[in-house]
Amino acid sequence: MIDPQRRWRPLPDKPDYAGFLSFGGAPLAQDPEHLAGVDVAIVGAPTDDLVSDRPGTRFAPRAIRAASCSPGPHLEAGVDAFAELRILDYGDAPVVPADPVRTHDAIRRIVGEVVDAGPLPVVLGGDHSITEPCIAAIAERRGAVGLIHFDTHTDTGREVFGVEHSHGTPMFRLVDAGHVAGNRYAQIGLRGYWPGPAEFEWQQSHGIASFFMHDVRDLGIREVVERALAHAGSGPVYLTVDVDVLDPAYAPGTGTPEPGGMTSVDLLWAVREIAARAELVGADVVEVLPQAVGSADITALVAERAVREVLTGLALRRSHARTASA
Amino acid sequence: MIDPQRRWRPLPDKPDYAGFLSFGGAPLAQDPEHLAGVDVAIVGAPTDDLVSDRPGTRFAPRAIRAASCSPGPHLEAGVDAFAELRILDYGDAPVVPADPVRTHDAIRRIVGEVVDAGPLPVVLGGDHSITEPCIAAIAERRGAVGLIHFDTHTDTGREVFGVEHSHGTPMFRLVDAGHVAGNRYAQIGLRGYWPGPAEFEWQQSHGIASFFMHDVRDLGIREVVERALAHAGSGPVYLTVDVDVLDPAYAPGTGTPEPGGMTSVDLLWAVREIAARAELVGADVVEVLPQAVGSADITALVAERAVREVLTGLALRRSHARTASA
Amino acid sequence: MIDPQRRWRPLPDKPDYAGFLSFGGAPLAQDPEHLAGVDVAIVGAPTDDLVSDRPGTRFAPRAIRAASCSPGPHLEAGVDAFAELRILDYGDAPVVPADPVRTHDAIRRIVGEVVDAGPLPVVLGGDHSITEPCIAAIAERRGAVGLIHFDTHTDTGREVFGVEHSHGTPMFRLVDAGHVAGNRYAQIGLRGYWPGPAEFEWQQSHGIASFFMHDVRDLGIREVVERALAHAGSGPVYLTVDVDVLDPAYAPGTGTPEPGGMTSVDLLWAVREIAARAELVGADVVEVLPQAVGSADITALVAERAVREVLTGLALRRSHARTASA
Amino acid sequence: MIDPQRRWRPLPDKPDYAGFLSFGGAPLAQDPEHLAGVDVAIVGAPTDDLVSDRPGTRFAPRAIRAASCSPGPHLEAGVDAFAELRILDYGDAPVVPADPVRTHDAIRRIVGEVVDAGPLPVVLGGDHSITEPCIAAIAERRGAVGLIHFDTHTDTGREVFGVEHSHGTPMFRLVDAGHVAGNRYAQIGLRGYWPGPAEFEWQQSHGIASFFMHDVRDLGIREVVERALAHAGSGPVYLTVDVDVLDPAYAPGTGTPEPGGMTSVDLLWAVREIAARAELVGADVVEVLPQAVGSADITALVAERAVREVLTGLALRRSHARTASA
Amino acid sequence: MIDPQRRWRPLPDKPDYAGFLSFGGAPLAQDPEHLAGVDVAIVGAPTDDLVSDRPGTRFAPRAIRAASCSPGPHLEAGVDAFAELRILDYGDAPVVPADPVRTHDAIRRIVGEVVDAGPLPVVLGGDHSITEPCIAAIAERRGAVGLIHFDTHTDTGREVFGVEHSHGTPMFRLVDAGHVAGNRYAQIGLRGYWPGPAEFEWQQSHGIASFFMHDVRDLGIREVVERALAHAGSGPVYLTVDVDVLDPAYAPGTGTPEPGGMTSVDLLWAVREIAARAELVGADVVEVLPQAVGSADITALVAERAVREVLTGLALRRSHARTASA
Amino acid sequence: MIDPQRRWRPLPDKPDYAGFLSFGGAPLAQDPEHLAGVDVAIVGAPTDDLVSDRPGTRFAPRAIRAASCSPGPHLEAGVDAFAELRILDYGDAPVVPADPVRTHDAIRRIVGEVVDAGPLPVVLGGDHSITEPCIAAIAERRGAVGLIHFDTHTDTGREVFGVEHSHGTPMFRLVDAGHVAGNRYAQIGLRGYWPGPAEFEWQQSHGIASFFMHDVRDLGIREVVERALAHAGSGPVYLTVDVDVLDPAYAPGTGTPEPGGMTSVDLLWAVREIAARAELVGADVVEVLPQAVGSADITALVAERAVREVLTGLALRRSHARTASA
Repeated sequence: MIDPQRRWRPLPDKPDYAGFLSFGGAPLAQDPEHLAGVDVAIVGAPTDDLVSDRPGTRFAPRAIRAASCSPGPHLEAGVDAFAELRILDYGDAPVVPADPVRTHDAIRRIVGEVVDAGPLPVVLGGDHSITEPCIAAIAERRGAVGLIHFDTHTDTGREVFGVEHSHGTPMFRLVDAGHVAGNRYAQIGLRGYWPGPAEFEWQQSHGIASFFMHDVRDLGIREVVERALAHAGSGPVYLTVDVDVLDPAYAPGTGTPEPGGMTSVDLLWAVREIAARAELVGADVVEVLPQAVGSADITALVAERAVREVLTGLALRRSHARTASA
Repeated sequence: MIDPQRRWRPLPDKPDYAGFLSFGGAPLAQDPEHLAGVDVAIVGAPTDDLVSDRPGTRFAPRAIRAASCSPGPHLEAGVDAFAELRILDYGDAPVVPADPVRTHDAIRRIVGEVVDAGPLPVVLGGDHSITEPCIAAIAERRGAVGLIHFDTHTDTGREVFGVEHSHGTPMFRLVDAGHVAGNRYAQIGLRGYWPGPAEFEWQQSHGIASFFMHDVRDLGIREVVERALAHAGSGPVYLTVDVDVLDPAYAPGTGTPEPGGMTSVDLLWAVREIAARAELVGADVVEVLPQAVGSADITALVAERAVREVLTGLALRRSHARTASA
Repeated sequence: MIDPQRRWRPLPDKPDYAGFLSFGGAPLAQDPEHLAGVDVAIVGAPTDDLVSDRPGTRFAPRAIRAASCSPGPHLEAGVDAFAELRILDYGDAPVVPADPVRTHDAIRRIVGEVVDAGPLPVVLGGDHSITEPCIAAIAERRGAVGLIHFDTHTDTGREVFGVEHSHGTPMFRLVDAGHVAGNRYAQIGLRGYWPGPAEFEWQQSHGIASFFMHDVRDLGIREVVERALAHAGSGPVYLTVDVDVLDPAYAPGTGTPEPGGMTSVDLLWAVREIAARAELVGADVVEVLPQAVGSADITALVAERAVREVLTGLALRRSHARTASA
Repeated sequence: MIDPQRRWRPLPDKPDYAGFLSFGGAPLAQDPEHLAGVDVAIVGAPTDDLVSDRPGTRFAPRAIRAASCSPGPHLEAGVDAFAELRILDYGDAPVVPADPVRTHDAIRRIVGEVVDAGPLPVVLGGDHSITEPCIAAIAERRGAVGLIHFDTHTDTGREVFGVEHSHGTPMFRLVDAGHVAGNRYAQIGLRGYWPGPAEFEWQQSHGIASFFMHDVRDLGIREVVERALAHAGSGPVYLTVDVDVLDPAYAPGTGTPEPGGMTSVDLLWAVREIAARAELVGADVVEVLPQAVGSADITALVAERAVREVLTGLALRRSHARTASA
Repeated sequence: MIDPQRRWRPLPDKPDYAGFLSFGGAPLAQDPEHLAGVDVAIVGAPTDDLVSDRPGTRFAPRAIRAASCSPGPHLEAGVDAFAELRILDYGDAPVVPADPVRTHDAIRRIVGEVVDAGPLPVVLGGDHSITEPCIAAIAERRGAVGLIHFDTHTDTGREVFGVEHSHGTPMFRLVDAGHVAGNRYAQIGLRGYWPGPAEFEWQQSHGIASFFMHDVRDLGIREVVERALAHAGSGPVYLTVDVDVLDPAYAPGTGTPEPGGMTSVDLLWAVREIAARAELVGADVVEVLPQAVGSADITALVAERAVREVLTGLALRRSHARTASA
Repeated sequence: MIDPQRRWRPLPDKPDYAGFLSFGGAPLAQDPEHLAGVDVAIVGAPTDDLVSDRPGTRFAPRAIRAASCSPGPHLEAGVDAFAELRILDYGDAPVVPADPVRTHDAIRRIVGEVVDAGPLPVVLGGDHSITEPCIAAIAERRGAVGLIHFDTHTDTGREVFGVEHSHGTPMFRLVDAGHVAGNRYAQIGLRGYWPGPAEFEWQQSHGIASFFMHDVRDLGIREVVERALAHAGSGPVYLTVDVDVLDPAYAPGTGTPEPGGMTSVDLLWAVREIAARAELVGADVVEVLPQAVGSADITALVAERAVREVLTGLALRRSHARTASA
């Protein structure tokens, strides 16, 4: 299944709705041996047991895959990630419904397996709690990471309704556990009515940089991304995208939508830019709550394209590196 | 708020979509003192943390209330439950998202509060796991109960995916804890592909009577209800209705729908018959997963009517008792 | 546009979704002169200003037309109504949104126009209030009519929320005005929680026959139709079908759905039987509240087929008459 | 129920989908005595009898409440309206379906009741005709008001299809009756194909300022809001927001959507700015036509957030006043 | 991947929404060598280029797989098809959008490949035209087959709108080509308005037996199935199920729905009975037009269960044969 | 039916949901003689046989008509196209489902018929393949045309999945056939992952100008439109708008949506500007895939408004010409 050559072989020419379901038509595999030589492994984390409002993101990994278009050159970036990178769909973590502890263990193990084998993991959530085991698996192997985090909400609660293991607390727990370096952690797109002063004081004490939606509105996305990249600095960076950072017009299918959000034009550019310039060690796209079939589900679709921008950014970086070394 | 007279006062004349949201326009209250003199208390249990497939029943209590029609005489039964009975909407149990243990404690407490004050509790789920705290609250006050259970699934798993606290296990746990008397427990509408021989052996060893959907098809609902009532016998009986006992045509909004199910004509008749003839001590309607607004959500609508049939059956029983004693 | 021959010419062969929108692809016309020689005129009454719950039936006439299939022989009845009868789509009454008085006047005028010119009017509602101007237009020309009425609700309220001009009162008003002969008026499919004893007493005093949904369940639709036909007796009969007589599984798109209703198998047969045997002077199908496009809207679809059964019944009657006279 | 202290007490900590349905979880009350000491009373006006196109806004008050998030500090404004203000959910006006005259009387009475007791009324429509009784109730107590009006349409028709009492005429009627001062009335977001020259001439003759959507596009929302505030001047101002001012991408659930509209980022900012700077005496958000449950209905959601921005603006004003007086 | 033992190994224990997408969680394979030793191969035919009305069945194979429940014993039949039979998901035929000729060739090749290797092919359509290449592939290897065909429509048109290669003509073409023996071909569920006398005369001349929906209504499904089995007689039989044979209440997601159809209780029983008693050489389920995700799509769900009944019938036959030979 | 005067007579005053279905309530006609004296003829092309992904645009012509609002003055442009121009709804081309060759011939013939009679054709697709017969019909009468093309995709594939007659190839075929002058052909809004270098090289070799979505983002729509108009130059120009040029937030109902697209504010302005300034000889709006009823379908709605902007631009041009000549 694995192409020994530097560039991944072209994928079979088939319509998106036919054939085995995988991300972008990438090869499917679930044995660790298939990870060898792979650049990026797509992993699903179909779980939503820890949400505080509307559930349903357990259906997202399949929906994001079903919204995939075929590989091809990114018309703005001019690079085809599937040609540049060896991309494998490594299936889903063996989640356990109604048992978030075992589910998170399973996610942590599968991401660790990927990292151990070499590929960069790109995870399809699931609710935002899955970022905790994803980053933990990376950080316990490579040390604390920087974090760039697109979201309406900071997700740095110490608890939500008294629950510590929640989709509103992963970033608190990751910083608290030393897996994320607060002074290399930037949030983009915050708005709405949560959290309160206590959480923001805690954030400040850890050096976390917050770019609110009104910063995006007032400074423009380019300036915000520059500042976020500067804050994240050099060293390994994880990128997490909660689709609710988008306005509900662009991403209606999410559990805690908040009007007044980003446009897809801004988000897609920003994700690619960050993937091309930061030293990415992992990424996820979370909180997609699909309803419709295939590309008719516009939230799964924009989430798929966000993953594509991660891949395109990585491909640009690879291509630039090759050019530079030539 | 409480009418001292034997018959509840007529409700205000208003369209169903206006005014405070309550079941059938019944008075809303959340203080235990308001339970005095009440015949039936409607309680919501908006939780779905323990499901194994599609979540969303946390939205059901509101949706069922929103699908309510105004009180009036049941055209077949000839009795108006809201005139005959003092019915109160006691609000929702104080559930905690992502913490099913605290949520179940809250449900158990609120149902116990109702039972202690006198009214019969009728609970709007929520997933089917909520039947466990509901019955437990009753049984610990009144002893083991008989159970009549409409469902596609037996819900008598010892575990589902290794999880013991699940919407697939409440009936096992209730029988196992002695809260439900197995030899007074009848299931109606079973079909599909779960559970397996081990569970059915366990069921048999406890004297549980199973009426499959093919029994309904072959014997007719009247004969099945006769047999179920005979099996439940005299003594306190709890009635639980999982809307997935209906064919998905009648109840598309549920988490684990199974084609080949009951019609609403049969279910509504059966529920009323049982409520009129058994010694009911509590009831619930569960596993409604709403999507649309008001009566446009046909699953919430049929669930609301199932609750109405419970109330109508109770009213018939009350009315017959009054006639008999006259 | 009008074929002078006894049988209507075959319609052009085109897919249902293309070409001018008309009922079954029938010719469109809106000038009275085009009514000459026509057997049946389809008229739309797109109004819902008088509903007490969910509005939206103003979109029904277009939706019912869009759900039309092409003409062809009815596979059970063996007759093609479009070949047997000259059927014209006479467009919509010139309704006035938010002005039900002018709207009803417009409906009464257009139905009168049709009746004056000869064709039998078949009206696509709109809410059920439109039956009042439809029957009034006929009765003021031909005298009081018998009525066969499929519905969950009797629609014989004197008022609804104090409003006399409502979709819950047309049958009261029609009987009260002498347009419908109470002793030739039969209702089929009643269920739910409305109206109350006062209305049923009034009904009884006028000799109205009520067949409840439990009668349909217990006697079967054939016996109920026999009794209804017998009650309607000889003389002119109007047929009105409120799609909420169907269970919400079969007709989810309606304003006041009531579970526990008829199946489409029963309703379609009954409508055809009545149209074939009664002396029909007009018919309507009302309370369709469409949401989806074309035949994807199953409520508009079953309403369209109910109209087809009216046409097929008329064609059978015509065909029998021709055979008998031969 | 009423907190005697200046700041309203924190609301109970519960998920948005549980518990009694009220705006933002605010206390529910319907007795005038409960209005004493309250700053803002939320009132529902669930009616849509006067629309000229798609109906359904009668379901909006419940849907907007169901889309509520819990109170908390506004992340841009830095103030929590529910902490700063005493906010009460005063339920719905006792509307009468199919009787717009009685319905408008009911709205006028309930808004008058609120104004008499002291709180500022914030009304959840309903169609836009409800602005007439809302403003009339205020103006007959406090004199003619200024008006800032977000909308696609001017709603200054003298009639629509010959109907004077319509959702297209309230602003004509209010100016005509002297309840709104034309020279203090500004419209924002106009576009599309209605009304015509006659209406605009009438508007000009009354000094009404119209900011079209192309003004928003060309000048930016900040400049437009400055000009509108300047036009409204000092003195009491009423704010009305028709959600169809938003592009259908942001507010698909409305009766007469018009592409080419505002973004939610612009609208939410503008509403808050106006509420913070004008001397607000009342506000409404209208023409929401909900379809889905809870926050899944993105139109109800953005309408809820528009109300929140009104509250946040009021809280800012209060907080500034307190600071200034300190 | 292939279990050498007679009984297939149990499938991994996972929730239906997680892991690689396959029918019932069966192993996925696409190399012919993996067909060895397999009893049943599931094949997708995602194409709808030849429909005459609403398209979209190209999404059905994925949707049917996504609606799969886990294996388990059929509660009525008492056998677990996945334990009894070696079932493989062989993926989709390599269809070509907008090129029905190449698509049908691809379907014919893949079915032929399955038949050559031994397994019985069960095909997930796709529109009904796919039955032509499926049966052709079988018949050219095993001779003319009998056919039992559930459908609203006969699909024996010589052309539809002048098009010979259509989803309305496969049965004409198969009989005409000698692949289906007309005198062993039975149709069940016919209704509606198509086709006309010419087609029925042709059918009669070939000995095709037609059971109309009114036969199902009048005789009952058991008698109809007996007669159909008797007509099909001994020898190889193919079973094709167009989901539009169901009433739109049960299968709203289909291209040409026709009210007045079968219930799922009847269809599922009938399919199992036929699979258990006829000498099945292949089967398909077609015309599913999915809209929603997973089991929320009730049409894909009932189609999946129809396939399950085929498998269960085959397992019963196998199990009986084993018992008989013991 | 045809008004001999220069200005078309005002249309009847009716709500949009009532009366015969036509574009903007324009007169309906299908006889060529009715084209005389007409300025613009609206033609439907309800076909989607050549799509490579989600089908359903065959329902678009009806849906676009149903989303029509009544005529009136464009509030920004100050002109009422229906007053300025004689606009006729010429119905649909007689398409043949599943036979794209005959369908395209039918479209070519009907557009030719319109062009021969004088009016400018404005075509409602259908998938984008319909642009080929539309332009061909014009070019064979008037010579090669310039083309301004809004789209995500270039549609200049030589084949898609090996199919030459596809909705991904019309622009290649039109340039290749000499019907479109490559050096007067400008594309606006390109993004995503298709096509590849070969197609762009071919485009360059023909002088085609491509404005990507990142050009719109970076230069602004006004500059892009200036450059596109300059590229198209003088001489006849055809305008084609694929609604997928819009972001899926604005046009979710389309077959191959691509996030990161245009806003409706930009598109509607651009279309009007082009229609006012270029020498338009025809236009189409394609790839609308409707789901909902009337204006509830926001994609059909924005498509309708795009057509309105074409008409408004033409009216402006006419009005300017009249002024200039006065």
